[in-house]
Amino acid sequence: MDCYPCFLRQALDAARRAGADDVRQRAVLDRVLEVLRQIEPAATPPEIGDRVHRIVRQVAGNGDPYREAKAASTRQALALYPRLKVLVREASEPLEVAVRLSIAGNIMDVARGQECDLWGTVERVLAQSFAADDGAAFREALARAGTEGHDGTVPLLYLADNAGETVFDRVLIEALDVPVVYAVKGGPTLNDATREDALAAGLDRVAEIVSTGSDAPGTTLDRCSDEFRELYEKAELIIAKGQANYETLSEEGSRVFLLLQAKCPVIARDVGVPVGSIVLKQG
Amino acid sequence: MDCYPCFLRQALDAARRAGADDVRQRAVLDRVLEVLRQIEPAATPPEIGDRVHRIVRQVAGNGDPYREAKAASTRQALALYPRLKVLVREASEPLEVAVRLSIAGNIMDVARGQECDLWGTVERVLAQSFAADDGAAFREALARAGTEGHDGTVPLLYLADNAGETVFDRVLIEALDVPVVYAVKGGPTLNDATREDALAAGLDRVAEIVSTGSDAPGTTLDRCSDEFRELYEKAELIIAKGQANYETLSEEGSRVFLLLQAKCPVIARDVGVPVGSIVLKQG
Repeated sequence: MDCYPCFLRQALDAARRAGADDVRQRAVLDRVLEVLRQIEPAATPPEIGDRVHRIVRQVAGNGDPYREAKAASTRQALALYPRLKVLVREASEPLEVAVRLSIAGNIMDVARGQECDLWGTVERVLAQSFAADDGAAFREALARAGTEGHDGTVPLLYLADNAGETVFDRVLIEALDVPVVYAVKGGPTLNDATREDALAAGLDRVAEIVSTGSDAPGTTLDRCSDEFRELYEKAELIIAKGQANYETLSEEGSRVFLLLQAKCPVIARDVGVPVGSIVLKQG
Repeated sequence: MDCYPCFLRQALDAARRAGADDVRQRAVLDRVLEVLRQIEPAATPPEIGDRVHRIVRQVAGNGDPYREAKAASTRQALALYPRLKVLVREASEPLEVAVRLSIAGNIMDVARGQECDLWGTVERVLAQSFAADDGAAFREALARAGTEGHDGTVPLLYLADNAGETVFDRVLIEALDVPVVYAVKGGPTLNDATREDALAAGLDRVAEIVSTGSDAPGTTLDRCSDEFRELYEKAELIIAKGQANYETLSEEGSRVFLLLQAKCPVIARDVGVPVGSIVLKQG
């Protein structure tokens, strides 16, 4: 119920970005109000978000309302990329810094409707203590991943979150020693990264980009392609970025490591940390 | 439409303050979603707010969900009262400072759901430039008010806004030279001041307290008592505090002076000032 105000705000924001006039904005809101009334209590926020943003795309007649905003986020993050690389290069613990930068990038979220000071966030997250820290288990899992060397092995599957954040993911991937498969959404939903957004951020230079086969927020395995599910099953280690992946994958077991900032009270309560916390949590 | 997310947030907050369990919170939200779907486009935010909070009071079975929060706001403001009095006493322009303090008090608004740093707000508003400033006209109107001296004259009608803010209103009234009638809501709505809240803030020591006869936010004259409307017609000068009074009275002509902080983007756009502005505007 705490998410309902946010869904309305997002729907209106997305409708406007989609170029909807007042009448269509009103039509979007009416349909969203109806969906919220009929939602089953067990629905997760990413599932509701999926329905809400499907309405926006349909009623506003725009398949990718956040397209421009996503491109702007990627440009903004790419402008910082050289400075991020210096931070990792000069770090005494490069992996630790790269993990923190990946989490710092999770602040990039135009759909939240709040301005963010990107460099300020980088500095904060570099200095901040983890509110949940399974870093030791993560480093162990990383060291093990890919050592078996079978054919068809997927040492590390990296589940992307938002456009722009992708650039920070790239910095982490460049600091790793294992081959990475980078999974993006199969189609536009909110400001989530698609293949186009990953390419714009240069992820093809450091990873194999694949699609989850789903255009819903988070990673709901039932809705992903058979091909992706097969990849998912084979992965030795999975990095899942952001709140929606947390909401859909936090019960998925010890192969999954959830990297995020707890940006809203609902997620923070679920993780058991204060709002604004940085989280590296084993599933 | 921009207000819809806020109505949902407020409804949930009020239902919880009213002690509603999950099932009743859900019932409140369902009724509110239905009301929002059926609202006519011309409805003002205070009118919608009235309907929303009537649903909360009815479904949650609590006639005054904000009662405790209002009492806490009044206590918080009364704790500052001696320092506010010193500010006026030591001012080179006591009226100017008292007007600013009254506007500073408009930050007190538990229903907005944001923490406020009350003393920080006082210091900010004392230093801040007015974004809309009809102060010269206000001082003229004040100097004229009450000089005619007929029987039954109402030199100054002061329309209250929120509990707690009442203490800041008292400081302004104490700095004026005219008899004041202080109008409060006829019954609980949101955190708006009722007679009980005005008495707790000591307004009876400095003004005659009357009821508008309405328990809706703002001052919608059609919904006020005949007695109040008569008083309103006779008033030489009217001070209307806060956003809801702005939304219901800003077209009411030159007798009305609207004192507020533009706390939300919808109001700020309507006044034509940035969010966070302080406003002293003639109707």
